[in-house]
Amino acid sequence: MNKLVVKFGGTSVATTAHIQRVAARVLKEVEKGNSLVVVVSAMGKTTDQLVHMANELCAEPSKRELDVLLTTGEQVTISLLSIALQKLGLKAQSFTGWQAGIHTETVPSNARIEQIDTQAIERALAEGKVAVVAGFQGVDSNDNITTLGRGGSDTTAVAIAAAIQAQRCDIYTDVEGVYTSDPRYVKNARKIPQLSYDEMLELAHLGAGVLHPRSVELAKNYEMPMSVRSSYCEEEGTMLKEEVQMEKDIVVRGVAFEGDIIRLTVYYEAPYTSSLASIFTTLAKHHINVDIIVQSVIPNMTPTVSFSVKKEQLKEALIILGEHKDTLGFDHIDHEAELAKVSIVGSGMASNPGVAATMFDCLYKEGIPVKMVSTSEIKVSVVIPQEEMLHAANALHEQFDLSILPETIA
Amino acid sequence: MNKLVVKFGGTSVATTAHIQRVAARVLKEVEKGNSLVVVVSAMGKTTDQLVHMANELCAEPSKRELDVLLTTGEQVTISLLSIALQKLGLKAQSFTGWQAGIHTETVPSNARIEQIDTQAIERALAEGKVAVVAGFQGVDSNDNITTLGRGGSDTTAVAIAAAIQAQRCDIYTDVEGVYTSDPRYVKNARKIPQLSYDEMLELAHLGAGVLHPRSVELAKNYEMPMSVRSSYCEEEGTMLKEEVQMEKDIVVRGVAFEGDIIRLTVYYEAPYTSSLASIFTTLAKHHINVDIIVQSVIPNMTPTVSFSVKKEQLKEALIILGEHKDTLGFDHIDHEAELAKVSIVGSGMASNPGVAATMFDCLYKEGIPVKMVSTSEIKVSVVIPQEEMLHAANALHEQFDLSILPETIA
Repeated sequence: MNKLVVKFGGTSVATTAHIQRVAARVLKEVEKGNSLVVVVSAMGKTTDQLVHMANELCAEPSKRELDVLLTTGEQVTISLLSIALQKLGLKAQSFTGWQAGIHTETVPSNARIEQIDTQAIERALAEGKVAVVAGFQGVDSNDNITTLGRGGSDTTAVAIAAAIQAQRCDIYTDVEGVYTSDPRYVKNARKIPQLSYDEMLELAHLGAGVLHPRSVELAKNYEMPMSVRSSYCEEEGTMLKEEVQMEKDIVVRGVAFEGDIIRLTVYYEAPYTSSLASIFTTLAKHHINVDIIVQSVIPNMTPTVSFSVKKEQLKEALIILGEHKDTLGFDHIDHEAELAKVSIVGSGMASNPGVAATMFDCLYKEGIPVKMVSTSEIKVSVVIPQEEMLHAANALHEQFDLSILPETIA
Repeated sequence: MNKLVVKFGGTSVATTAHIQRVAARVLKEVEKGNSLVVVVSAMGKTTDQLVHMANELCAEPSKRELDVLLTTGEQVTISLLSIALQKLGLKAQSFTGWQAGIHTETVPSNARIEQIDTQAIERALAEGKVAVVAGFQGVDSNDNITTLGRGGSDTTAVAIAAAIQAQRCDIYTDVEGVYTSDPRYVKNARKIPQLSYDEMLELAHLGAGVLHPRSVELAKNYEMPMSVRSSYCEEEGTMLKEEVQMEKDIVVRGVAFEGDIIRLTVYYEAPYTSSLASIFTTLAKHHINVDIIVQSVIPNMTPTVSFSVKKEQLKEALIILGEHKDTLGFDHIDHEAELAKVSIVGSGMASNPGVAATMFDCLYKEGIPVKMVSTSEIKVSVVIPQEEMLHAANALHEQFDLSILPETIA
């Protein structure tokens, strides 16, 4: 009998009517002869409502108590879904994080799973029950309730799948899978049938928003096949695995983009008087996320270093750098706003050095100026004016023929 | 340092504003130098809303899953109250049932507490924290979440008080204490300063509704001093303890009453052809609660047995008796509706045999017919026409001078 872990997010369980639909979907999988663990999130906007109540009492409530509060959200869903499954004639049993044996670090609000004691879940499966597990939550070694931070329910699902050696982990969500680009903005964006974990990680980090990077990392570490698919239709979604079928002649899998990027440029009077690293160490200490870094040291020119930050962190970054001006030894800073980052991602790139050139050429022909560039083995990112973001994304999607479903080599 | 357990019910924590008031009240007790465990119920109508959702999915949801669902209610309150206490500068830590070490039987929806492992609570108190504990819930030996049934939070409070050997258990509620009768219907009903556990038990069973009988039984077993008082004012409430100060010349402490009583009468053709007990065994098997029983076997008269049941169980009782007519060996049944039960309660009664006579005399003078009588060591109950219920209650309250706060003998 195949063991599957399936996960349904908050929008899929927003109301009792939604929960009935999820139950029907679970029944279908059971009828195929699968043994199921179902991981669920809190219903719809429940988490927001709970946070709102806490904030009525305190602007910065204790993280421990906030975890106690928020985990009630998934606890409500597991019991209601179990009741709905029983109504359909299935045997079902709910598990909170601690009942499911999900042991985490002692880090309130952002704990990592350390170990899963699968005994209780395995017993339920052996008894022919569907195990319904609360996502996003666990328990630390002192019996404190903890939560796993953003995207935590995806992580719960993958971690349980790895621990019980499931055949697959299916993430049901409100989109049909991972797309070559955002279909709301890019013409002819299409669903990608298969992706490698690394490609998904680049896309996830680049703001594709479908899966949390942590869950993909975990799936990669355990080589757990993972799919992303729609709660609302029968269509196959996107399958993530280590070795994906190579799409013929295709090196670029997707185009990701993200606005509200700021480029900060730090000017030095003379060659650096302190280590360049110290700027980034200082910013990291204050939780400022720096993305692309470009330095320029040209003879007879002012040495500079440029880097991109998110718009909402600009003010704080400027204050922190100003406070450390003397130690860091720079002369002045300026910044350029209203920029965006556009990236192309694909595992095939590593062995196709011409891809970056094709990208720059495409942007040049479209008259889009490139302000910064960053590359990795499997992606190329450029920073461009924000007003050109969708223009660039569409042009690149077209350039790399992403709208055409490619033939695959078996 | 005095250890106190205080309990606040659902109406006292109905909103975040209410929770702030509870926090302020707790702060006051801490400032007096007390070490506090606070037991709380679910906020206002939360439990009803959760049950409603479960019923949208299934008319009779599994009790195990219903317990998982309902216990989220108190979990929300403990976290919010802890946050409110921390905001006032107190150290506070929340405890769910399982975190508080409340071990129960494996009886979903109506479990009894078997044992409390107080280690975690005691540690929090030793660290100078207020321990905020979820009422109504526990965990069984298989790590299932359980609930304690109606009045469960009162029971949690008393059980913890006994387990940590607290000085006192204070139940804060929306009334100022236990009254000599219901002040909404009986003129000059007044708060009773002190009651024995047994008196409270009779009043609780007789529908005074302030405390659940199980919590009072527990307090009696452990001789835990217990008070009932208002969340909304500073007034002393009613103190329950084993030995109460005797009120001079006072044998009756309170008048309780309850409407919608039915008298069923079973007629036999000849002396009983089967054991009388079999009627009551049969009814008990079908969860029909029989209260007062009167039998009459008079020479040359048809033998009968009469008993009272609640109006809502009449139909079921008639069906069950009808189905077992042959086995039970009776001839026919009739019933009288629109009756009420009025009771007087007081420990002093045992040594004052004239009390029942005074009661009957009073009712006779008021022209109120008595249909049935039942007595115990510390109470006398009569069944009378429902339309005379408040008349009788007021007359008896007057007769026994209950409106006058008696002098006490130290």
